[in-house]
Amino acid sequence: MKLSDIAECIGGILHGDGSVEISAVASLEDATCGSISLLASKKHTDKLLQSKASAFILPAGLSCEKAPFISCENPMVAFAKVIRLFHPLPSPKGIDEDAVIEKDVKSGQDMTIYANAFVGEGAILGDRVSLYPGVYVGAGVTIGDDTILCPNVVINDGSEVGKRVVINAGTIVGGEGYGFVWDGTKHLKIPQVGKVVIGDDVEIGANCAIDRATLGKTEIKKGTKIDNFVHIAHNCTVGENTLIVAQTGLSGSVEIGNNVILSGQIAVSDHLKIGDGAIVAGKSGVTKNIEAGAKVGGFPTRPIMEWKRIQKSLEKLPEIRKTVDSLCKKIQKIEDEESNNA
Amino acid sequence: MKLSDIAECIGGILHGDGSVEISAVASLEDATCGSISLLASKKHTDKLLQSKASAFILPAGLSCEKAPFISCENPMVAFAKVIRLFHPLPSPKGIDEDAVIEKDVKSGQDMTIYANAFVGEGAILGDRVSLYPGVYVGAGVTIGDDTILCPNVVINDGSEVGKRVVINAGTIVGGEGYGFVWDGTKHLKIPQVGKVVIGDDVEIGANCAIDRATLGKTEIKKGTKIDNFVHIAHNCTVGENTLIVAQTGLSGSVEIGNNVILSGQIAVSDHLKIGDGAIVAGKSGVTKNIEAGAKVGGFPTRPIMEWKRIQKSLEKLPEIRKTVDSLCKKIQKIEDEESNNA
Amino acid sequence: MKLSDIAECIGGILHGDGSVEISAVASLEDATCGSISLLASKKHTDKLLQSKASAFILPAGLSCEKAPFISCENPMVAFAKVIRLFHPLPSPKGIDEDAVIEKDVKSGQDMTIYANAFVGEGAILGDRVSLYPGVYVGAGVTIGDDTILCPNVVINDGSEVGKRVVINAGTIVGGEGYGFVWDGTKHLKIPQVGKVVIGDDVEIGANCAIDRATLGKTEIKKGTKIDNFVHIAHNCTVGENTLIVAQTGLSGSVEIGNNVILSGQIAVSDHLKIGDGAIVAGKSGVTKNIEAGAKVGGFPTRPIMEWKRIQKSLEKLPEIRKTVDSLCKKIQKIEDEESNNA
Repeated sequence: MKLSDIAECIGGILHGDGSVEISAVASLEDATCGSISLLASKKHTDKLLQSKASAFILPAGLSCEKAPFISCENPMVAFAKVIRLFHPLPSPKGIDEDAVIEKDVKSGQDMTIYANAFVGEGAILGDRVSLYPGVYVGAGVTIGDDTILCPNVVINDGSEVGKRVVINAGTIVGGEGYGFVWDGTKHLKIPQVGKVVIGDDVEIGANCAIDRATLGKTEIKKGTKIDNFVHIAHNCTVGENTLIVAQTGLSGSVEIGNNVILSGQIAVSDHLKIGDGAIVAGKSGVTKNIEAGAKVGGFPTRPIMEWKRIQKSLEKLPEIRKTVDSLCKKIQKIEDEESNNA
Repeated sequence: MKLSDIAECIGGILHGDGSVEISAVASLEDATCGSISLLASKKHTDKLLQSKASAFILPAGLSCEKAPFISCENPMVAFAKVIRLFHPLPSPKGIDEDAVIEKDVKSGQDMTIYANAFVGEGAILGDRVSLYPGVYVGAGVTIGDDTILCPNVVINDGSEVGKRVVINAGTIVGGEGYGFVWDGTKHLKIPQVGKVVIGDDVEIGANCAIDRATLGKTEIKKGTKIDNFVHIAHNCTVGENTLIVAQTGLSGSVEIGNNVILSGQIAVSDHLKIGDGAIVAGKSGVTKNIEAGAKVGGFPTRPIMEWKRIQKSLEKLPEIRKTVDSLCKKIQKIEDEESNNA
Repeated sequence: MKLSDIAECIGGILHGDGSVEISAVASLEDATCGSISLLASKKHTDKLLQSKASAFILPAGLSCEKAPFISCENPMVAFAKVIRLFHPLPSPKGIDEDAVIEKDVKSGQDMTIYANAFVGEGAILGDRVSLYPGVYVGAGVTIGDDTILCPNVVINDGSEVGKRVVINAGTIVGGEGYGFVWDGTKHLKIPQVGKVVIGDDVEIGANCAIDRATLGKTEIKKGTKIDNFVHIAHNCTVGENTLIVAQTGLSGSVEIGNNVILSGQIAVSDHLKIGDGAIVAGKSGVTKNIEAGAKVGGFPTRPIMEWKRIQKSLEKLPEIRKTVDSLCKKIQKIEDEESNNA
């Protein structure tokens, strides 16, 4: 592919020789002759100078003398597009004869269903859906166009998955919520008969678990991106374009707004609300509602700057303790002298 | 189904017209005409007044004028029963011809074994057992009557699973314990050749991992309920009717008593004991034994009230620090004056 | 097996009657007649005295009068070898006719491939490889000799797995890294097209997730042992003979050295380096680089002794707070008196 073609594809401004042939995309360190690479920010200029890449993508305003480059307003977005150019999605492979398709399944066009995938009764599959080996699609499930379910993904009965969704391997959608009530002699199961609804353009990492609602639905709205090992309990609602980083867990009936960022290893107690645009630092324990736009951290959560101030003071705590002890002695001494004087 | 029949089934007292036909069960918010719904406590009375349900389940002592209702001592238990009435467990489907059953397997009556399930040599399956697609039952495993293994559950060789057990999708029972010993040049594996024993009426969430013992057994006793992503290491014992919430991990050889509650994202260090009826708050790090009946939280764990007091003081720490600084100066001043006076 | 043969196999010194027949290996508590058991350290001598084992393995320097024993410099290493003697690895079973092997796969000798395992186009499998049911080996994957992939393990396209590797059930190798960039209207996926490289003798627990690199590779070097539920994000490097305990998560591009110990439920922020031989305590949050050989704990991490001192002071915090309040009053009183005197 010619560099000038790449520049056109990604909408960047070409500087230098556009006829250079580019055959691969690579990091600055790993690039070899024929590769295109990215300088994401000025601070990695050293790496660029040592790189063997034949062309670069640079942020607008920067330039480079050693090789032709494409100047981009948002170089990371441009680079994402370049990677896709050199690594296109695979073409449809059809339905393998060892796939198990139960009765009354409604199939789309140009699907890829591998051996050992299972599609339950009455499921509806959109166009260009990909089901890898070991995928389980339960009875009555709906899967939208262009959605990819990686190996061993489970979508339990009645769930709805939108378009252009990617679910990485081993993730379970629609497992039973954790709902029990003590009946005097045992924990009686509250049957979990609701569903999970996943919006368009949602991506979910590997080995996640999103539980079905007790009644009604657990919902992940469009454009939200979820990392590995995220636990979303029954009846939660997660808004649009929200990011949930690895190993975070939401208890039952939590409501997360749009454009929220939940960092890794966070726990959120049940029935809480986190407003639009809020940011929660990693390892936090959320035990009360969080306002829209708030930036919080800690357990319990506090405004992030306050939490950092506490962390800083904490370092000094053993010293503070000693100081307080010595102050006590000094004051005792002063008081003793005063009473002697009196 | 007539409301009077429902009242009889769940052992509640009918108030109002028992001939009303009920066709569904729903939450107060989602209920439509023909639904029965639950008012769990007085504080949601507003929702009841706006609900479109045709009948309600109410706690004994409350009443409602807008529709007939069933009065119940334990309304949540009653509601769990009503949900099951409208969502009965599926009937047996037999053994699919694409299921893989190795030799010498002893099968029960009325089983459901889906395509792509695998049952290893010499396994013993009880009556009405359900094995979903992708389930792996290892050699010599025993599965009790009415037990349900959801898609892609793995029960490794030699494990024993009781009656009426439900294991959600993706959970691994009997993986190798994490046991190594440094032999001077490498971490040598200590072979993990024990088993896992799971008692009757245990329920386990999605994507959990319960490791086999090094020797002997890892045991989960009857009636215990485990949420998603729970890690139980080799040689642990978990008592009866205990609750373990999501993303909690037990290190090796931990002993948990009966009726314990472990909240989410807890870690328990190896070889510790947690006594009957103890309650551990979320995100705690348990590094010493916990007495029966104790309520603890934090890392390291402390009595819950003490831990909350510390959390509260922590908020004031930056202020305390400043106060101590100013006290130091004041005392210095007093001391200086005294020495001047002397 | 004769005790004398066992002594020879494990290179220990036999004391007492070597003709005793040993048929099993068990813990001191569970041992019955015919078993051999281990006294790992002197403090469990009571259990040895009550044990029904017919022979023991003892640390060099200890002895026992009730039964013959084998004296070993490293008794745990010896015991690991004895367990393997009585529980040898299974012999090869060949390739099941219900396994799915795509075209151009290069197969080794003496493999075991169960029904419902899937091997993608162009994969290379070493000698004596075992693939259990539900395993997915993607296109172009390399699996080294003697490697065992337990049920439902997923190795995505292009990954490389070394020799003598054990990966427990449900683990996902090569899932897509969590990489997105905001393009002004949505989180655009940065295609994750790198691979995962796993060295020889690595062992990985159940339900882990090791993401493929964006470009280049995510690497786990030889001899490293990983527990259940460990999350390793894109572009991480983990050194040799490192231990990572359950439920720990590494963010993107983290570099872990050799012989490091990461305890359970740790989080490590992106792009950090942890030096050779460092030890990080459980539940820590690592937010800055850690020097080789350092022992740290807490969130943020501090030298372990400092962190413990802070924890200890924390217990006294409510008391310190009260003391500071009373000091304030006392000083106020002294100052008031002084101004009165003046």
